[in-house]
Amino acid sequence: MYLIEQKRKIPLCIQLYEELKKDIIQNYNVGEKIPSIRKIASIYNLSKNTVEKAFSQLVIEGYIDSYPKSGYVVTETNYQDFNNNQKIEVEKNDIQEEILYDFFTARLAQNSFPLKLWKRLFAKVINESLDFGKYQDGQGELGLREQICKYLIKSRGVNCHANQIIICNGFADSMGLIANLLKDSYKNLAIEFPGYHIARSVFNSHNYSITNISVGKTGINLEELNQSKSRLVYITPSHQYPTGVTIPISKRIKLLEWAKKVDGFIIEDDYDSELSYTNRPIPSLQGLDKHGKIIYAGTFSKSLSPAIRVSYLVLPAVLLNKYKKSYEYRTSKVCLTTQKVLEKFIEGGYWDKHLRKIRTSNKKKHNIMKNLLIEKIGKTLKIERQGSGLAILINPTVDFDWDKLEALSKKNKMKLYYAKERSGGKWQALMMGFGGFNEEKIEEAIIVFSKIWNKCII
Amino acid sequence: MYLIEQKRKIPLCIQLYEELKKDIIQNYNVGEKIPSIRKIASIYNLSKNTVEKAFSQLVIEGYIDSYPKSGYVVTETNYQDFNNNQKIEVEKNDIQEEILYDFFTARLAQNSFPLKLWKRLFAKVINESLDFGKYQDGQGELGLREQICKYLIKSRGVNCHANQIIICNGFADSMGLIANLLKDSYKNLAIEFPGYHIARSVFNSHNYSITNISVGKTGINLEELNQSKSRLVYITPSHQYPTGVTIPISKRIKLLEWAKKVDGFIIEDDYDSELSYTNRPIPSLQGLDKHGKIIYAGTFSKSLSPAIRVSYLVLPAVLLNKYKKSYEYRTSKVCLTTQKVLEKFIEGGYWDKHLRKIRTSNKKKHNIMKNLLIEKIGKTLKIERQGSGLAILINPTVDFDWDKLEALSKKNKMKLYYAKERSGGKWQALMMGFGGFNEEKIEEAIIVFSKIWNKCII
Repeated sequence: MYLIEQKRKIPLCIQLYEELKKDIIQNYNVGEKIPSIRKIASIYNLSKNTVEKAFSQLVIEGYIDSYPKSGYVVTETNYQDFNNNQKIEVEKNDIQEEILYDFFTARLAQNSFPLKLWKRLFAKVINESLDFGKYQDGQGELGLREQICKYLIKSRGVNCHANQIIICNGFADSMGLIANLLKDSYKNLAIEFPGYHIARSVFNSHNYSITNISVGKTGINLEELNQSKSRLVYITPSHQYPTGVTIPISKRIKLLEWAKKVDGFIIEDDYDSELSYTNRPIPSLQGLDKHGKIIYAGTFSKSLSPAIRVSYLVLPAVLLNKYKKSYEYRTSKVCLTTQKVLEKFIEGGYWDKHLRKIRTSNKKKHNIMKNLLIEKIGKTLKIERQGSGLAILINPTVDFDWDKLEALSKKNKMKLYYAKERSGGKWQALMMGFGGFNEEKIEEAIIVFSKIWNKCII
Repeated sequence: MYLIEQKRKIPLCIQLYEELKKDIIQNYNVGEKIPSIRKIASIYNLSKNTVEKAFSQLVIEGYIDSYPKSGYVVTETNYQDFNNNQKIEVEKNDIQEEILYDFFTARLAQNSFPLKLWKRLFAKVINESLDFGKYQDGQGELGLREQICKYLIKSRGVNCHANQIIICNGFADSMGLIANLLKDSYKNLAIEFPGYHIARSVFNSHNYSITNISVGKTGINLEELNQSKSRLVYITPSHQYPTGVTIPISKRIKLLEWAKKVDGFIIEDDYDSELSYTNRPIPSLQGLDKHGKIIYAGTFSKSLSPAIRVSYLVLPAVLLNKYKKSYEYRTSKVCLTTQKVLEKFIEGGYWDKHLRKIRTSNKKKHNIMKNLLIEKIGKTLKIERQGSGLAILINPTVDFDWDKLEALSKKNKMKLYYAKERSGGKWQALMMGFGGFNEEKIEEAIIVFSKIWNKCII
């Protein structure tokens, strides 16, 4: 007897379908006939139409089939466990260790994001003209590209046109696009060593071989680059990651000559130039290029928010045409509303204001941390890099127990970041990020840190 | 003589820096001394500090350097063209051909997106608790994963836990993640033929070899799959792309047995099951799986919007653990606010309502198109697939000039989509998408279409 209740919220045909399915699985063998539509309709006082719907669903799912003259016959019963909520053996999310002091170098302060303004702009841009029904332009919305273009020309000395800009979903997505675009002609990537670990891993996962090129006081070693067979190089010319050195103009020109000579490309990662607060930002390498040899990469993750997922590329004309041909199926990976809000944000002058604000705030935090470090443990440390970005890099000038540092920091719920781990090289330094702290918290963190530091001096 | 004006808005040190740079490039040779800081400060009536800033910028950029006892010496002058707005030779955006009738199958109607509600929910979720300063959980926000999980259990018969869900940036991103995760152990992907071209191209670009498996009336051919050496297969079991067939329960069980036997995985792409409007959605294959052999993939692109960039994966436990180990550097690719709004959207019951609404609307449009096709050209066409999704697939039953169809449709500003081109196979059909039209427009489009159709009959 099937349980079919008129009063239940579930449509009658679905109730019947569920009951029939249960019945077939439990009580029928393959090849057996089930009662006819007419019979079931009459027993349960249902319309023929209702019963037909239930039968049709069972036919589609493959439990029964209709044969001329013999009616509906069971075709499968070997199905027992569906929908009975078996237990799934999945580890619960690992309980995150509580961290009191996180010196992460790419962490922005929670209160630095212009929340209210973003909300206001969102309410403004979301209107009937936005088409959420379609896949968006793979290059990104033209309006946003125009705003980024203006900014790059004015503030970064980039020589570009909005048509050359591709909006991407963060740095790894930008690099993935380049890796894909070039993989037919380039098999190897030369990379600064030490250098940014994520650039390395993206190209690695696209099956490029990687050639390490050492970094000196003026950045990447040109001789090594020349000797390598690579025709593609990734660099951070304005502010090398992680050492912070700047490539001087003379070497910049030589790099451009190298790219022309080998018919190659230089990927210029300009990840945090706008954050420089002691010097004026160094004009981009791209602005010097006359032969379309620079692929310029920028991001909003380091200066606005990594949670909005927006980065961008400026492709030279020859690659742009290749992109247009090979990426026909590519659709934008950046949320439409985010693109629209960001466009209005730059257009309204808020981006410039925001940059000024966070430069001032970063400079202040930087100085607080620097002064505290010098005051507390200045006699035993050397500052390797300072004055820009979101971190001060330090090393001990005395014999030092790095393992003990790691153990003690963990014990004190402090998370430290090591240049070696994050740049693939041998070069070691502690990367003391201050972006995530507010000013008061820096003092607290450095006091705890310096006590740990002193215990690690051998 | 340098042009330094107190009245200009540009800081004095930057004015001086620009003037000095120009002077060095135009008038100095490498090795020549430039005037001292003190001298310049006195000539232009500037503070020593201002001049020092300008010098320091020139040192960082590599134009000058200081030597003990000899002062500042020019190190590079070979730099002429920066920032003078050279012309960039980039093609303007290709002028998009105007299209009057676009039968694209993955196009949603512009007015189907719940714009006002989205705006309201956005205003609600954006508040101080959101942290835009950090990289978000690579798996996606837990709250959204919980909502998707509930939906999948209830409406798709998926057997899962929120911990197994990964929020991705659309279908290609989902597939890219799987391709990356499995590439060490799996080198080949078996795929339905004809089958979804994007699944094919993503695995292709991750260097998988592809084995085509033919599709019959009950979906993928099991014998061919058995004979292939592949241990990984991509299928659309509930609603095969593009033929629309459903894999019956008996074959589903055999597929699961196959996956267990070969120690493989089945990627179940459940791309548009929720859109079925003649039958109840077919319960997922994943719900039958007892051995963790199904990787379940879903998306919001086909039913809500492709412009919000949200898809998801349900990983079996063994892959989840692999994911957690190998994707340490992975950060979420979906905009934080979108995740939050979508969470509230599902939680508030709006997602269920939305699905009901668009199912009704799609059914209506489907019927209008179907009836018009039958009325106008029913004698010369066969309907290959109907009753779900956003398209009716048709073929001529008479001799037909396909080339002429292509030419005439283009002339009439009509965009048609061919199954062959979009599924890599030999199987041909016209994919008559109705999602992007409103109801009135369908009639207009089909009238024009049927005139063209009739001209192509040989």
